Amino acid sequence: MRPFTTIAPPPMARLIEALVKLPGIGPKTASRLAFYLLRAPEEEVMALAEALRNLKQQTRLCEICFHITDESPCAICRDERRDHGLICVVEEPLDVLAIERTGEYTGVYHVLHGVISPMDGVGPEDLRIRELVERVRREAPREVILATNPSLEGENTAVYIHRLLAPLGVRVTRLARGLPVGGDLDYADEITLVRALQGRQEM
Amino acid sequence: MRPFTTIAPPPMARLIEALVKLPGIGPKTASRLAFYLLRAPEEEVMALAEALRNLKQQTRLCEICFHITDESPCAICRDERRDHGLICVVEEPLDVLAIERTGEYTGVYHVLHGVISPMDGVGPEDLRIRELVERVRREAPREVILATNPSLEGENTAVYIHRLLAPLGVRVTRLARGLPVGGDLDYADEITLVRALQGRQEM
Repeated sequence: MRPFTTIAPPPMARLIEALVKLPGIGPKTASRLAFYLLRAPEEEVMALAEALRNLKQQTRLCEICFHITDESPCAICRDERRDHGLICVVEEPLDVLAIERTGEYTGVYHVLHGVISPMDGVGPEDLRIRELVERVRREAPREVILATNPSLEGENTAVYIHRLLAPLGVRVTRLARGLPVGGDLDYADEITLVRALQGRQEM
Repeated sequence: MRPFTTIAPPPMARLIEALVKLPGIGPKTASRLAFYLLRAPEEEVMALAEALRNLKQQTRLCEICFHITDESPCAICRDERRDHGLICVVEEPLDVLAIERTGEYTGVYHVLHGVISPMDGVGPEDLRIRELVERVRREAPREVILATNPSLEGENTAVYIHRLLAPLGVRVTRLARGLPVGGDLDYADEITLVRALQGRQEM
């Protein structure tokens, strides 16, 4: 089988090559997308190109919660109507979007940017855990919800953080086991996530 | 459920908005791709943006076969080692790639850019059928393979073209029924396509 990129005309081949690097996009999907884009309105293609060009330049991490944002502190941390005494700790920025989508959570966040995983060489110092402990000490929130994924690494990370936070006297909770064990938080449907938030338990 | 784009930071939201317009990409896939791209190497993201910007400007249709190309005539039509007495008629440029991928076809192509479909308001005059008839009259090829999809519209288009070509005395064949009826040519695996090419039958 000859690779797609030696068959397609060069401008097409370059786009297909760039698209197959994306996760979950194989050569056939990439070709279909490329041919779709070739026929799509000019503005639509240029809007995508422009959004890609601006993505990195216009985004940074929030200095408080480390969520992705265009200005720091982020819109959630700046929002006075939100409950700043309630901090939800998540693995990834996508998890913030998943919880925000429920519309049921009114607290703020703390994004770890990963999970403790010795197999992958990721230790606590590679995550925003030190910053979380400092933040809890500084802000003295009422409650910290540990919303890491219900996976082995997620559980271990939650246990690790719980040990660090316990001496500070803050209430530490974990999302209820409404989430399927071994699953991925940001694939959960809204209702499951709402139930998990409502049924959160003392650690 | 609140839409993703009101929750994500604006540069992210703009990218997600542009990505969900692509076929087969929903809001969750778009968000995952956007977060992947945020962490991907700068060069990778810029290569994709650049490929998108150049796509339309650098591509045109081949004046002979109407395949997508960067210069006209296309590389296949210019290739003297190919059998110019054998023309394979396909619906879409993607179908050319699918057949080229087999590495078994040595003839040239003619891309119709669609299929006769009265329901969608597409008549023969909207496709490159007139150009095909002129080409067959001019070039007097040995054989024309009608490789439109094995769908109702594909069959009807093949029958329509066969009627136009019959008076010209050219041999007209159709891909063998190795292809699953109702399927889509460019989803076929290479072996099925090779069998279909080998077993092509007189119309």
